[in-house]
Amino acid sequence: MIQGYDPRTGEPAGEPVPETADAEVDAIAGAAAAACGSWEQAGPGGRAEALEAVAAALDGAAAELVAAADTETALGPARLAGEVARTTGQLRHFAAVLADGGYADAVASPGGEGVPGLRRVNRPIGPVAVFAASNFPFAFSVAGNDTASALAAGCPVVVKAHEGHPRTSLLTARIVAGALAGAGAPAGTFAIVFGVGAGVRLLRHPAIAAAGFTGSARGGLALAAVCAQRPVPIPFFGELGSVNPVVILPGAAAARPADIAAGYAASLTLGVGQFCTNPGLLFVPGEHERLRSAVAEAIRASAGGPMLTARIHDSFSGAVAELGARPDVAELAEGQPGEGPWSATPAVFQVGLADFAAGLPGLAQERFGPVGLVITYRSVADLLPVLARLGGNLAGVVHADEASAADMDLARQVADVLARTVGRVVFNGWPTGVVVTHAQHHGGPWPASTAPAHTSVGAAAIRRWLVPVAYQDFPARLLPAELSRGSR
Amino acid sequence: MIQGYDPRTGEPAGEPVPETADAEVDAIAGAAAAACGSWEQAGPGGRAEALEAVAAALDGAAAELVAAADTETALGPARLAGEVARTTGQLRHFAAVLADGGYADAVASPGGEGVPGLRRVNRPIGPVAVFAASNFPFAFSVAGNDTASALAAGCPVVVKAHEGHPRTSLLTARIVAGALAGAGAPAGTFAIVFGVGAGVRLLRHPAIAAAGFTGSARGGLALAAVCAQRPVPIPFFGELGSVNPVVILPGAAAARPADIAAGYAASLTLGVGQFCTNPGLLFVPGEHERLRSAVAEAIRASAGGPMLTARIHDSFSGAVAELGARPDVAELAEGQPGEGPWSATPAVFQVGLADFAAGLPGLAQERFGPVGLVITYRSVADLLPVLARLGGNLAGVVHADEASAADMDLARQVADVLARTVGRVVFNGWPTGVVVTHAQHHGGPWPASTAPAHTSVGAAAIRRWLVPVAYQDFPARLLPAELSRGSR
Repeated sequence: MIQGYDPRTGEPAGEPVPETADAEVDAIAGAAAAACGSWEQAGPGGRAEALEAVAAALDGAAAELVAAADTETALGPARLAGEVARTTGQLRHFAAVLADGGYADAVASPGGEGVPGLRRVNRPIGPVAVFAASNFPFAFSVAGNDTASALAAGCPVVVKAHEGHPRTSLLTARIVAGALAGAGAPAGTFAIVFGVGAGVRLLRHPAIAAAGFTGSARGGLALAAVCAQRPVPIPFFGELGSVNPVVILPGAAAARPADIAAGYAASLTLGVGQFCTNPGLLFVPGEHERLRSAVAEAIRASAGGPMLTARIHDSFSGAVAELGARPDVAELAEGQPGEGPWSATPAVFQVGLADFAAGLPGLAQERFGPVGLVITYRSVADLLPVLARLGGNLAGVVHADEASAADMDLARQVADVLARTVGRVVFNGWPTGVVVTHAQHHGGPWPASTAPAHTSVGAAAIRRWLVPVAYQDFPARLLPAELSRGSR
Repeated sequence: MIQGYDPRTGEPAGEPVPETADAEVDAIAGAAAAACGSWEQAGPGGRAEALEAVAAALDGAAAELVAAADTETALGPARLAGEVARTTGQLRHFAAVLADGGYADAVASPGGEGVPGLRRVNRPIGPVAVFAASNFPFAFSVAGNDTASALAAGCPVVVKAHEGHPRTSLLTARIVAGALAGAGAPAGTFAIVFGVGAGVRLLRHPAIAAAGFTGSARGGLALAAVCAQRPVPIPFFGELGSVNPVVILPGAAAARPADIAAGYAASLTLGVGQFCTNPGLLFVPGEHERLRSAVAEAIRASAGGPMLTARIHDSFSGAVAELGARPDVAELAEGQPGEGPWSATPAVFQVGLADFAAGLPGLAQERFGPVGLVITYRSVADLLPVLARLGGNLAGVVHADEASAADMDLARQVADVLARTVGRVVFNGWPTGVVVTHAQHHGGPWPASTAPAHTSVGAAAIRRWLVPVAYQDFPARLLPAELSRGSR
């Protein structure tokens, strides 16, 4: 049984949900395979309508969804209502992506004297397994971005629910399934399974053609290995851990220490620090005591809160204790404790650049929660080679004083190094807050993502679930609809 | 030492080439890493000029290249001269891809009220290891399509030479390196290593960011495992074996048996059958004796020839002997033997659909060389589920009589099934002959390709070596050139 808990009390929240039995997982995967043809043939228009219907149904049930998720996650009604809106926005975003048509990448190379003509188009890869995340009970869970993009691509989806919010997952799944059926989607287009064993069985099922995952590096790498070791390996698109380095340049530190400190503390503690885009590493010029004082002050004023699960809380507490015990690391500030048994207290530590470099890769590992490491550097020339040694991250940030030519020149150098190890470089901002637009890239070199060319957020996320097929010398009447409608 | 041999005699051809020592492999990989920045900064214009220079240099040395390759491969001057032209055509094709600019996939999503603006662009993934193929000593070897596409992407390339044509590889590498240097490419942009051990060491080197491979399933899967098991795994783009099913529909069999038989025999024996697009499986309607007679006649008239290496010849002989020994398989026809110790004699066997289905997956495995299996079916309804059970293939073909409504309806059904298991579906043609155009897709589901969304031929082949980076709220003056030039 999968039992949800109320993070504010640590007590069980609602009835447990049964784990999905092996035979049921097999039947669900088989039904997904059987739905492939009809779901593809629904065409971009039909699938867009179905996505809109799912969005409308979720919006209509927003109050109920928020209440269920608040009990299981303690993320609070405001954040959760916003997340439902983001989730339905994502579904509608992919309806727009379908209407745009560019996702099909339809292209024709006419033949000629002895040269065959070719028309190429993207087609759905097949049934997709989606592993839901703990920290976004809507936007990266049952009806989240992986599900929305895969359904849009024409792929049936089977979600493996996250153990952290089983009742929210079940409720969402019922709404999604009902809306899809109401919109005429074939049976088998969408289903949900519960339990780690069910998830692994699903991933090994011959009907599953690809998998999406958002979560920890440990879990993701284990599932990636399952995919790679199948008799027929399948692509695994995992968004794993990230520490998202933030570099404050001297001009910025001098010009706006209070703003930077406030922005940092807000980003670090947002959602009790439970974001893959959390700014885990803050590089500051060592001579700017004012900035470090401001950071300490902002952190002391920040509030903790209950974490999503006991396991996440245990892991966070361990990471903080480990940092605190290191002789090369000193505590800079601690925030206000939250309430309840799983509450995290924000904490920031500091270390010199040389000690940080000596402590790699351990000191740059992800610590999920509101804990940050402030690294003091003497010069950007010292900093650059250390930045280059960081593993792949989802995002990296540089703060510069735009009025300072020296800062802007340094910013270019820092951005150049960051752009080789992160998927998104932010200027004078913070890594948290990933907008859902066409130009978004939420990925990055390993281990931030297991598939560095792909994103799990934004329009391009649909590309993960598409494979090209070229048609050589085909009569127009035998071409699939996307190609017979014409192509560039 | 890597010793090449003359396939016509089995005797050593020229001086052996030393295997690359470990320290040299490391130095080469390090130099490739050091070249990344400058090669990217050469920009699309600078890289296009360098590719044109390489093409011109190879064209200028065509006679010498053809002579060297003919000694080591016995593919003949006509085929080899054509292949040099194809190779330089590919290099120029990628110069044109760079001029077009679409490869950068530059896209902007302007920000707004509280919404950050984003600009995304593709950037080079880093140094690429290219494993050369045996069967295309130019087009998929040292200066082949993997090298051309990776250099175009802005990635330094280190080629691991194929053991089958070491002197041709060395000669080509010297021409490529000289032309690149002459065009101002940084040192380290291109290098070559010799030996299996050197190739594996290269693949494990931290500087290598991705790998391309064309060859056997066994070799490819071993290298894929090396990539997956690195401390930092890297993408491996392998084009592996393929049997390329060809379906002859009843109308086509009745209308043009002689044409089909001639086309089949020509495709099966082209290049002594040593193409990954060889038509290994021919499905014919059982009642059409005339087609089978014509096929037998065409095969009896076909000529064998020397295979590329002793190992390929041994493997071919074993595969033919194994087929011949099966009680469920009968010999249909044998062609004329070629000359020399490594010569292959074309051979075609036949089997009923039920026995073929019972013999899967073994009967559908690749047999590299001029050996085919003709499978007789009673009805397309019987055939479709068997086609659906085939593993991934690079290409699949359907032959129909365009004047027959019944054939065209069946063709649609066959194409629909094929399109789920192959990368390219051909109508009334043959799988050999892969044109280099924008719409080409030379890939397919596993095991045809280890990366089903990617192609190793055509403009899209460059995508393998690119990763997106998004720039959030960046001042225009800090953006990379591809983005500051404007984007859609």
